Amino acid sequence: MQLEAYKIADHNQKALEAHQRKLSYWTDEIANAEPIIQKLIDFQIAIPSWALGTGGTRFGRFPGGGEPRSLEEKIEDVGLLHALNQSSGAISLHIPWDIPKDGEAIKSLAASFGLRFDAMNSNTFQDQPNQQHSYKFGSLQHVDRAVRQQAIDHNIDVIKHGVALGSTSLTVWLSDGSCFPGQLNFRKAFERTQESLQEIYAALPDDWKVFVEYKAFEPNFYSMTVGDWGASLLFANKLGPKAYTLVDLGHHLPNANIEQIVSLLLMEGKLGGFHFNDSKYGDDDLTVGSIRPYQLFLIFNELIEGMDAKGMNHATDLGWMIDASHNVKDPLEDLLQSVEAIQLAYAQALLVDRSALEEARDANDVVKAQEILQEAYRTDVRPLVAEARRRAGGALQPLALFRQLNIRQQLIGERGLKTIATGL
Amino acid sequence: MQLEAYKIADHNQKALEAHQRKLSYWTDEIANAEPIIQKLIDFQIAIPSWALGTGGTRFGRFPGGGEPRSLEEKIEDVGLLHALNQSSGAISLHIPWDIPKDGEAIKSLAASFGLRFDAMNSNTFQDQPNQQHSYKFGSLQHVDRAVRQQAIDHNIDVIKHGVALGSTSLTVWLSDGSCFPGQLNFRKAFERTQESLQEIYAALPDDWKVFVEYKAFEPNFYSMTVGDWGASLLFANKLGPKAYTLVDLGHHLPNANIEQIVSLLLMEGKLGGFHFNDSKYGDDDLTVGSIRPYQLFLIFNELIEGMDAKGMNHATDLGWMIDASHNVKDPLEDLLQSVEAIQLAYAQALLVDRSALEEARDANDVVKAQEILQEAYRTDVRPLVAEARRRAGGALQPLALFRQLNIRQQLIGERGLKTIATGL
Amino acid sequence: MQLEAYKIADHNQKALEAHQRKLSYWTDEIANAEPIIQKLIDFQIAIPSWALGTGGTRFGRFPGGGEPRSLEEKIEDVGLLHALNQSSGAISLHIPWDIPKDGEAIKSLAASFGLRFDAMNSNTFQDQPNQQHSYKFGSLQHVDRAVRQQAIDHNIDVIKHGVALGSTSLTVWLSDGSCFPGQLNFRKAFERTQESLQEIYAALPDDWKVFVEYKAFEPNFYSMTVGDWGASLLFANKLGPKAYTLVDLGHHLPNANIEQIVSLLLMEGKLGGFHFNDSKYGDDDLTVGSIRPYQLFLIFNELIEGMDAKGMNHATDLGWMIDASHNVKDPLEDLLQSVEAIQLAYAQALLVDRSALEEARDANDVVKAQEILQEAYRTDVRPLVAEARRRAGGALQPLALFRQLNIRQQLIGERGLKTIATGL
Amino acid sequence: MQLEAYKIADHNQKALEAHQRKLSYWTDEIANAEPIIQKLIDFQIAIPSWALGTGGTRFGRFPGGGEPRSLEEKIEDVGLLHALNQSSGAISLHIPWDIPKDGEAIKSLAASFGLRFDAMNSNTFQDQPNQQHSYKFGSLQHVDRAVRQQAIDHNIDVIKHGVALGSTSLTVWLSDGSCFPGQLNFRKAFERTQESLQEIYAALPDDWKVFVEYKAFEPNFYSMTVGDWGASLLFANKLGPKAYTLVDLGHHLPNANIEQIVSLLLMEGKLGGFHFNDSKYGDDDLTVGSIRPYQLFLIFNELIEGMDAKGMNHATDLGWMIDASHNVKDPLEDLLQSVEAIQLAYAQALLVDRSALEEARDANDVVKAQEILQEAYRTDVRPLVAEARRRAGGALQPLALFRQLNIRQQLIGERGLKTIATGL
Repeated sequence: MQLEAYKIADHNQKALEAHQRKLSYWTDEIANAEPIIQKLIDFQIAIPSWALGTGGTRFGRFPGGGEPRSLEEKIEDVGLLHALNQSSGAISLHIPWDIPKDGEAIKSLAASFGLRFDAMNSNTFQDQPNQQHSYKFGSLQHVDRAVRQQAIDHNIDVIKHGVALGSTSLTVWLSDGSCFPGQLNFRKAFERTQESLQEIYAALPDDWKVFVEYKAFEPNFYSMTVGDWGASLLFANKLGPKAYTLVDLGHHLPNANIEQIVSLLLMEGKLGGFHFNDSKYGDDDLTVGSIRPYQLFLIFNELIEGMDAKGMNHATDLGWMIDASHNVKDPLEDLLQSVEAIQLAYAQALLVDRSALEEARDANDVVKAQEILQEAYRTDVRPLVAEARRRAGGALQPLALFRQLNIRQQLIGERGLKTIATGL
Repeated sequence: MQLEAYKIADHNQKALEAHQRKLSYWTDEIANAEPIIQKLIDFQIAIPSWALGTGGTRFGRFPGGGEPRSLEEKIEDVGLLHALNQSSGAISLHIPWDIPKDGEAIKSLAASFGLRFDAMNSNTFQDQPNQQHSYKFGSLQHVDRAVRQQAIDHNIDVIKHGVALGSTSLTVWLSDGSCFPGQLNFRKAFERTQESLQEIYAALPDDWKVFVEYKAFEPNFYSMTVGDWGASLLFANKLGPKAYTLVDLGHHLPNANIEQIVSLLLMEGKLGGFHFNDSKYGDDDLTVGSIRPYQLFLIFNELIEGMDAKGMNHATDLGWMIDASHNVKDPLEDLLQSVEAIQLAYAQALLVDRSALEEARDANDVVKAQEILQEAYRTDVRPLVAEARRRAGGALQPLALFRQLNIRQQLIGERGLKTIATGL
Repeated sequence: MQLEAYKIADHNQKALEAHQRKLSYWTDEIANAEPIIQKLIDFQIAIPSWALGTGGTRFGRFPGGGEPRSLEEKIEDVGLLHALNQSSGAISLHIPWDIPKDGEAIKSLAASFGLRFDAMNSNTFQDQPNQQHSYKFGSLQHVDRAVRQQAIDHNIDVIKHGVALGSTSLTVWLSDGSCFPGQLNFRKAFERTQESLQEIYAALPDDWKVFVEYKAFEPNFYSMTVGDWGASLLFANKLGPKAYTLVDLGHHLPNANIEQIVSLLLMEGKLGGFHFNDSKYGDDDLTVGSIRPYQLFLIFNELIEGMDAKGMNHATDLGWMIDASHNVKDPLEDLLQSVEAIQLAYAQALLVDRSALEEARDANDVVKAQEILQEAYRTDVRPLVAEARRRAGGALQPLALFRQLNIRQQLIGERGLKTIATGL
Repeated sequence: MQLEAYKIADHNQKALEAHQRKLSYWTDEIANAEPIIQKLIDFQIAIPSWALGTGGTRFGRFPGGGEPRSLEEKIEDVGLLHALNQSSGAISLHIPWDIPKDGEAIKSLAASFGLRFDAMNSNTFQDQPNQQHSYKFGSLQHVDRAVRQQAIDHNIDVIKHGVALGSTSLTVWLSDGSCFPGQLNFRKAFERTQESLQEIYAALPDDWKVFVEYKAFEPNFYSMTVGDWGASLLFANKLGPKAYTLVDLGHHLPNANIEQIVSLLLMEGKLGGFHFNDSKYGDDDLTVGSIRPYQLFLIFNELIEGMDAKGMNHATDLGWMIDASHNVKDPLEDLLQSVEAIQLAYAQALLVDRSALEEARDANDVVKAQEILQEAYRTDVRPLVAEARRRAGGALQPLALFRQLNIRQQLIGERGLKTIATGL
C-alpha cells in the first residue's frame, strides 16, 4: 500500500491550529528555531530492512501480522514510514536476507517512495542453507582459509549488490569470537580477520566506505574479535582511508561512556556510521530513546561538536541507521517512535549554546556547563520536529495517523496474518 | 546405544596404575579423603533434557550431529553420561518439549539406565502451535485471566506428568516481565503472578516442592517479574512451606555476590534448587566452571556450611541441576566437563577446615580465613573425583573414554547427521 | 548570613514577565497545572548536613571556601537554600559529625529558617578519636559483643539527640560486610546484625521509624551485610512495623531496575525513605538528575502510583532526602540543582495520565504506554516548578540569584577560605 | 629490622621433609618442572611503596601498627618481603610521597636488601601543601597552561629522581577527567593531555620508557581522559617508541575481557607494564588472586603466549608491579599472599601445553582447548613455587614464618603503634 498525500494533508489540517500555537510559542522562546527546523528536514535516518518484522530472543518469537513477505514489501513499509515522517528516506539492506533479484527495478521502486540505499550489511554470523562451509567457529577469523574465502567472497558479493542499488558503504559486523577460554588465539584471530578485511577492502569501489562494527559480547560469550572501539579503530587504521568504525549503541560493556568514544573517533577522523537503539542490560535493541534519552542527547551533543569541528555535513557525512528489534511492538510503530526520539535528541543538541559552553569549560564552571546542557535538554522541541515534518510533507503526528488510518490492519489484509519477514 | 560395562573396566584397567599413584599421594596428604570420596559417590546432578542438543543464540544455531530425536533418545544420552561418570543419575524434563506418552514405559526406560526424574519444568515463555492464547505479554502475570488460566493449567499438567514419572518437584521459570518503561504495572503484575502461583501450589501433591526461579533480565529487556532472590523469596513465603527459591548461576546482575544469596536463602530455609552453568556477561549458559571456577567453589562452600547448619543431606535435600546450552561444543562432552567441574568444586569445599575457619573469623584473622579457603581450592582433588567414579562403576577419565569409543560417531550412525533435539 | 526577603522579591520582579509568559502557555497546555503546583509547594526535600562541604574520593579532596564550620553554620546554609527554593525545609543530621550541644537552641535556630529535622543518621563506619572499640571489622555485625554494644549504644544515643530536635526517624546505614571470601560467615553476620538492630528498635519512641539502608558494595569490596533490598526487607520484616527499607539511588549493582524495587517495597508497605543522587558507575553521589534523568522520572512514576494505591501522602509519608557529595561543584549550587531536578521529575510524574496508562496496560498496548510516559516526560515543566517556588516565597531562578548575590563570596568573607565542614 | 638468613634456614629445615615429598611427586608428574622453577626464580615483582601502610576508602581508614614512617623504613619492609620470598626484588616509588633526599644513599640501602627501583610514579591527582596550582579540574588536561606546566614539571622532576635511583621507567596515571556531562570537551582534553605528555616524553632519557596507565572511572565519575586501552594506545602511538600502555587489573568496566586486551597490546608491541590486584566491583585493589584466580591465570596465559611470540624475556621485558591497598589485612601479609598468587598463576600458565593448544585451536576442538588450560590450572604448583623460593634463599612458607617470627610485633616495637605511612 501507498499512503496518499491527501490523507496526510487532512490529518495536518485538523492538527494545525494546536500545532501553530505551540510552534509560535517556541519559535519565540528559542533564538535559532528556523535553522534547527531546516537541519531536521535534511536529516534522514536509514531503516534496516531486517527490522520490519517481529524480532525475538533465543527463547521465543511472537510474530504480529502483515509482515512484509519480500524485499518489495519491505521497501513499501519503509516508504510508508517515510511518507509519514519524511525522515526515513533510506533503507539499509541485509544480504542474504534481502537479495535484490533485479537491482534496477528495486532501485526504481525505492526511488518511487523517495528512498535511497544506505549501507549494505553482510551476514557471516549464520549458516545459510546449502552453504559450503559453516561459520560455527567464525568467518573472517576462521582457522580454515576456505571458510575465510567464502566469507570474503560473500562480502564482495554484497558490495556488488550495493553498487547496483546505488549504495556507497558496507557494514561488516562480525560475530567472530569465542565462547570459552582457550578456544581462540586472540592475536592470530585478529591477524586473520585483518587479512580477510584487506581483501574486502581491496574490492571496494573508489567512492565506497567500509564500516567495521564492534560489539562487546554475544553471540560469542567469552570474546569478540572486534570487541570494542579500540579494536575496531586498529582495524580501520590498518585498512586505510576508506575504513571507519561504526558505533552501535547497544554494543558496549555496562556503564560505558559512549559519548566520549564518539568524540575520540571523530577526533581521529574515523567515525563512519551509527546504529541507533536503546538498552538496559545488553544488546537489547529496544526503541531509540526509550531507556536512556539523556545519553542519546549527550551523544548527539558530541556528534555535532565533533562534526562541526571537522567541517562535516550532519546530514551526509555519517551513516545514520537504526538497528533495533521489535519483540512486543508493531515494528512500524516502533520505528516511528525511534525516528522521533532521534530527531528530538538532535534538535535538543542543536539548541546547545556552544560558545557559552566552551566559555564555561574554560572557566571550569561545572555547574554552568551542566546548566547549559540541561537548558537545551529540558526544552520541549516536539513542535520544531513536527514543523520539520510538516514542511517536508509528512504528518504532524505520524503515529496517531498510522493508527487512525488502520495501516497495520490494511497490511494484514493485503499480506495475511501469519507472514514472517526475513531477519532475526 | 548403551555403554557396556567391560569397556569402562578396560579403560580403567589401563589408567589404573597412574591413578593409584596419584590417589595414594593425595590420600596421604589429605586427612579426610575417604569421607569425601563417599560424599562424591552419593552426589548426583540432574541433566536437563533440553541440553542434549546444540543450542544457539538469537543470531544463529549451528547443530552438530546425532542429536536425540525423542525423549527415549534423550534418556539414552543421559544414560551414557551416567554410565561414564556415575554422577548424572537424574534427568530434568521440560514440558512440552518432552511429553512422555507412556509414563510407565519412560520411567522403566530411565530406571534401566539407573536414572530418576528430578524437577519437572513448565514452559510458558514460548507459544506452542495450536495454543489458544499467546504468552507474548506474559503468562502467570498476564492481564487477561484466560491467558493466566491456560498457563496455570499447563503447570498443573506438568505436575501430572511428573507424578507419573516419580518426580517430586516443579520448577517454574517465568519469562514474564516487560520490555519498556510503562508497559507493566509492576505491583499488579506481581499480584497476578502470585495468585496464579497459588493455584498451581494448590495442585501440588503432598510430597512435592515448587521452585520459583528468578532471573534479572532476558528475554524481557526492561523488567522481569521474578527478577531477583528478593522477589522470589517474597513469592515463596507467600505461597507456603512447599515453595522454594531456585538459584541459577547465570540469572544475576553483573558482579552479584551469589554465594551470599545462597547463604541467606539457606538461613531462611527457602533454598530449594540450583541450576549450574557459567557465564561472563549475561545468562550465557556456558560449561560449569569454565569462567569463574573460584566462584563455584565459594558457592559450594556456602552450600555445605548452610546445609550442615540445618542438618540437611547434601545429596538429597536440594535439587541439583545443570542448566546449560552448547553452542560450539558437543553437548555430551560439555556435560561431562560440567559435571566434573561441579564435583571438583564440591570436593574442594568439603576439604575446607571449617572449625579453623570459624576460629579465624572469630579472631577477625582475614588473612588466615583466606588461606584456609585457598588451601582447599588449590588442592588437586581430581584423583578423589576419579576414584569416586571408579568405585561407583564409572570411568576414570570419562571424556577421554567418550572420545576413544567414538560415541558421537556411533550416535550419528544411529540417528543421522541432521537431527535436531527439541529445546532452545 | 540570612537572605533578606526583599532580594528575592526584587529578583522575582525582574524575571516575572518572562515567567508569566511561559507559565500561562503551560497552564493552558496542561490540564491539571494548578494541583501540580500545589503538590510541588508541599513537597520538601531534606538536605543532609554532611553535604554542605566539599566531598572527595580516596584519592583526594579539593575544598572550596566558606564551608560551614559548625552545626549552626550548616543550618544557616540549609536556611539559605530553603530561602531560595522553599523546597529544602528539612535537614538530616549525622552523628557524631553534628552533635547538637544544646538541642533546644539548635531546634530554635532551625525553626527560625523554617527548617525541621528529618531522619537522624548514625555512623558506625568510621572510628572516632578516643572510641574504645574499632569498627574495622564491622559494627552491628561484629563478632565481639562489646563492639556491637558500642554501636548499639551509639544508635540509641542518636535517637536521643533526634528526640531533642523533633526528628522522628533514624537511618541506619551499615558499612558492615567483608573484603575477602572467607572473612565472614554471612549467616552469622546477618543474625548478629539482626539482634543488634532489635535492641535499637526497642529503643525507638512510639512515633519513630527506623530505616534500614542497603548498599551493594563499598566500603566493603566483597560482601555487604545489608547488600540489597531483599536483605533490607528481611531485616525490616523481622524487626516489626516501625522498621522500613530505605532506597539510595546509588547503592545498586549495574543495570538494576530501581523503579521496580520501589514498586515492590511500596506494595509490601515497607518503603520508608529515599536518598536521591545520581551516578554512572558506582555510588558516585552526583547531582540528582545529572546522569539518568529519565530513570528519576520513572522512579517518581512508581512512587506516585504506589503511594496513591495505599492512600499515602506524598509530602509526609516517606522520608525524602538528598545524599550527595560535591567534588567539583560549589555544594550549595549543587544542592540547588539537585532539588530542582527532583521537583521536575516529580512534576513530570504527576503529569502522567494514569487512567489512560492503566487502560493501555490492560490492552497490552506497549507503544501507547510508552507514549503516555514520554508525553509527560517531554513536557517542559520548569515554569510550574518556578511558579511553585514563587508562590511559596522562593526565587524564580534560585541558582542565578545565588550567583548574582555573590553568596559564596559572602560566606567566604564570614567564614574564611580554608574552612572544612565535617563529613566525608 | 633485617631478617637473618639463619632464621629462614631453620624454618626451611623443619619444613623440608614434607616439602621434598610433595616436590618429588610433582616433578615426577610434570614434564618440565625444572625450567619452570628456574623461570620462577628469575621472576621478580615490584612492590609499590604506597602499599606498605594500611589503605582506606573515602569512608574511613583503620590503621594497623608498625607502619613505615619514612622511605628508609619502606625499603626495609620490602627488604623483609624479599628476604622471605626472594621474588619481591624491586620497589616502585611514588613522588611526592617518597622523595629520596639522598639518591645515592637510598640506592645503596635498597641494594643492601637486594632491591632495585622499578617504575617511578608521579602524582598529579592530589594537591600537595604549598602547591601553586590545584589539580581539582585536572592536570595534564587542564584548560590552564600554567597548571599543565606545573604537572609537566612535576613529571620531569620524577624522572630525575628516578635517574638518581637507577629506575628506567615512569608510570603516568592521570585521574584527569570529568564528573558531569558538559564539564569537559573530550577532544580538547585529549589533545591537551597529548601535548603535555609529549613534553614529558621529550625529557625521557634514552633508555627510559613511559607507561600511560588507563582507568575506566574513579576518581572522576563521568569520564576519564585516559579511560581504556584504546585511548591509552592512541596516546602511546602518538608519543613514540618509548611510550607504552600499562594495564591495571582493576581499571576496567564490568565483565571486560582483560586477557584479550593483553593479547592485542602485545601484538601491537605496546604493552609496557602491569599492575596486579583483584576486585569484584570496581578498582577494589584487593589481594591478587583473591577473587578471580582463573582470570589471573588466563592473563598469564596470554602474557606468555604474546611475549614468546615476540621473543621477549618474561622477567625483564615488562614492568611487573603490584598495585593494591590493604584495608583489613596486615600490608606485609597481604603482599606475601599477592606475590604467591602471581607466582602460582605464572607457574600454571607455564605448564600449558602450547603446541597441543594450538593444535586444538586449529581443529576447532573447543573442548580440548579448555581441557588443556584446565589441566594446567588444576595442577597444584605450590611445591614448585616453594622450591623456587628455597633455591633462591627464601622461605618455604613465607607467611607462616612471618607470623612465627612475630615480625609485625617487632616492627610495632621499633616504630610504634600509631605510625602512618604516606600513601593513599
